[in-house]
Amino acid sequence: MADKHIGKQTVALQNPPVIAAGACVVGKKEGEGPLRDCFDYISEDSYFGESSWEKAESAMFRQCFSLVCDKAKLAPSSLQYIFSGDLLNQCTGSTFALRDSDVPFFGLYGACSTMAESLALAAMTIDGGFADTVCAISGSHFCSSERQFRLPLEYGGQRTPTAQWTVTGCGGIILKAQGKGPKVTHITTGKIVDAGVKDAANMGAAMAPAAYETLSAHFADTGRSPDYYDAIITGDLGIFGHEILCELFAEDGIAFTKVFTDCGMLIFNSQEQDTHCGGSGCGCAASVLAGHILSCLKSKTWNRVLLAATGALMSPTTTMQGESIPGISHAVAIENL
Amino acid sequence: MADKHIGKQTVALQNPPVIAAGACVVGKKEGEGPLRDCFDYISEDSYFGESSWEKAESAMFRQCFSLVCDKAKLAPSSLQYIFSGDLLNQCTGSTFALRDSDVPFFGLYGACSTMAESLALAAMTIDGGFADTVCAISGSHFCSSERQFRLPLEYGGQRTPTAQWTVTGCGGIILKAQGKGPKVTHITTGKIVDAGVKDAANMGAAMAPAAYETLSAHFADTGRSPDYYDAIITGDLGIFGHEILCELFAEDGIAFTKVFTDCGMLIFNSQEQDTHCGGSGCGCAASVLAGHILSCLKSKTWNRVLLAATGALMSPTTTMQGESIPGISHAVAIENL
Repeated sequence: MADKHIGKQTVALQNPPVIAAGACVVGKKEGEGPLRDCFDYISEDSYFGESSWEKAESAMFRQCFSLVCDKAKLAPSSLQYIFSGDLLNQCTGSTFALRDSDVPFFGLYGACSTMAESLALAAMTIDGGFADTVCAISGSHFCSSERQFRLPLEYGGQRTPTAQWTVTGCGGIILKAQGKGPKVTHITTGKIVDAGVKDAANMGAAMAPAAYETLSAHFADTGRSPDYYDAIITGDLGIFGHEILCELFAEDGIAFTKVFTDCGMLIFNSQEQDTHCGGSGCGCAASVLAGHILSCLKSKTWNRVLLAATGALMSPTTTMQGESIPGISHAVAIENL
Repeated sequence: MADKHIGKQTVALQNPPVIAAGACVVGKKEGEGPLRDCFDYISEDSYFGESSWEKAESAMFRQCFSLVCDKAKLAPSSLQYIFSGDLLNQCTGSTFALRDSDVPFFGLYGACSTMAESLALAAMTIDGGFADTVCAISGSHFCSSERQFRLPLEYGGQRTPTAQWTVTGCGGIILKAQGKGPKVTHITTGKIVDAGVKDAANMGAAMAPAAYETLSAHFADTGRSPDYYDAIITGDLGIFGHEILCELFAEDGIAFTKVFTDCGMLIFNSQEQDTHCGGSGCGCAASVLAGHILSCLKSKTWNRVLLAATGALMSPTTTMQGESIPGISHAVAIENL
């Protein structure tokens, strides 16, 4: 039966899959930020040699996919599954990038939580006995996101104080059934949480309640307290969403210590780089995971990490129709066992 | 290790999950078609009581979700996961419908193949020991799809001979670890296949090569020939795509016998209902599965069915940028054991 299911919404993997390799490719602005030393490739060309922002996003995905296969010393065709998704309409950033990969493909949409969703399903696929070698990959591009979700760049629209900056970046992970490296041990799958926030320029506020729900469930289901972890890293709540999450936990008497941080806060120096509340996008959690987080796990700076990527599930159409913004957050525990 | 993986891209489930219930809600046109007796609810109101097509799509999803929980005699909150997706940008048809469900949610995007993708992952989640009770649900709405992918209905655009008609329909399945009923036994996950077709009004041609790839892999991996099955049902190739698939198999010496059919051909009487090549959309395979296919399995008219839902992974943006249309097809074997 469902012997791996613990508590309400967590699974404990019986044979935790190993992160055999991670790779990340980012844009110039991300390469100027505090995490610059952790990225595998920083592109000076925001078009990645292509003729449109959408094609650039796919080119970045392709480069990241090649790189992660190379780092894992694997022929791409030896992968048994790819789990992937992105922010573009109909998820064409990922599907067009990987259409020649010749690998069975599960397309996902979890907005900016997609990296955690893909890693979760990839890990479950291995632990369930369905595969030995699986790739999880996600990303986003600032320019394709701006014109799809907000305004064409040429318009020069002003950004509100709560706005975030979509990361141009892609992160890929190869999970294997066996080997050395950090392991995926627990997965807490998020419920959709809609707190009624309607401001599409304040996604941190829209997503913080979902992160709170998932992290609370993770602590309750596993019996772990926040201080079990060396780092608890949300996806892209940004500065303001992080503050809200802090307040929500304070109401439960849980101190929001230094272990809590956020990929969106880590990837940019917001004051210097003018990114307002910080980074966002599928590429934010994906590139920070494949770069900074993996690096800290490999150096044993951290041995127990909980990544809770966050996603805002609205579309421009739902916002125009007056809808609020549902959020979701999936948490994945990665540990040096 | 990956002891359930057979051949190149198929998994054989060790404890095949049971389809405990299926429900389908469709629009008026679908309710006038040949499968009318198999649908649980036929809405006379294409707005489903809402003020926009997008909200109508979500209302239809909600109704289908309530119905399938009711038929399975389950409180929605007793579900451990929902796997769902749809065609709308950012998959808001499904996420907005299910945002109050209070169930851990995996969002998927497989275009019109999403019902098979969600059923596949739901079944793997149960067979992998991660859950006992899971819902897979997908759907589409003709009017929201037309204005998003093609033209506003008010424009009255002419349809080409190879065009298909997006099904207004939603299908939901509840899978359980144990019980009586048809079981999901094998899953062949599709690779993305791009045959270079660029006509967005000829998606049957774009998807047929993907269906051919997945079905060929299924036969090779399982050692089963087409005549093992009582019915092999593609998702929404339509009349023209079905002909192409027939020709592709003929080149391999595989006779395209009566067991091969297509949800898009079954759901409409295309000549009388002016749907040109037939039905399409996530709701096509979803409502035909939850209605007609389950009904034939329950009555033992069929005991072995292979559903190979098909998806065209383009977006209006990729088409405008001159890209070809990648296709994908996921096959799920459902059997009375």
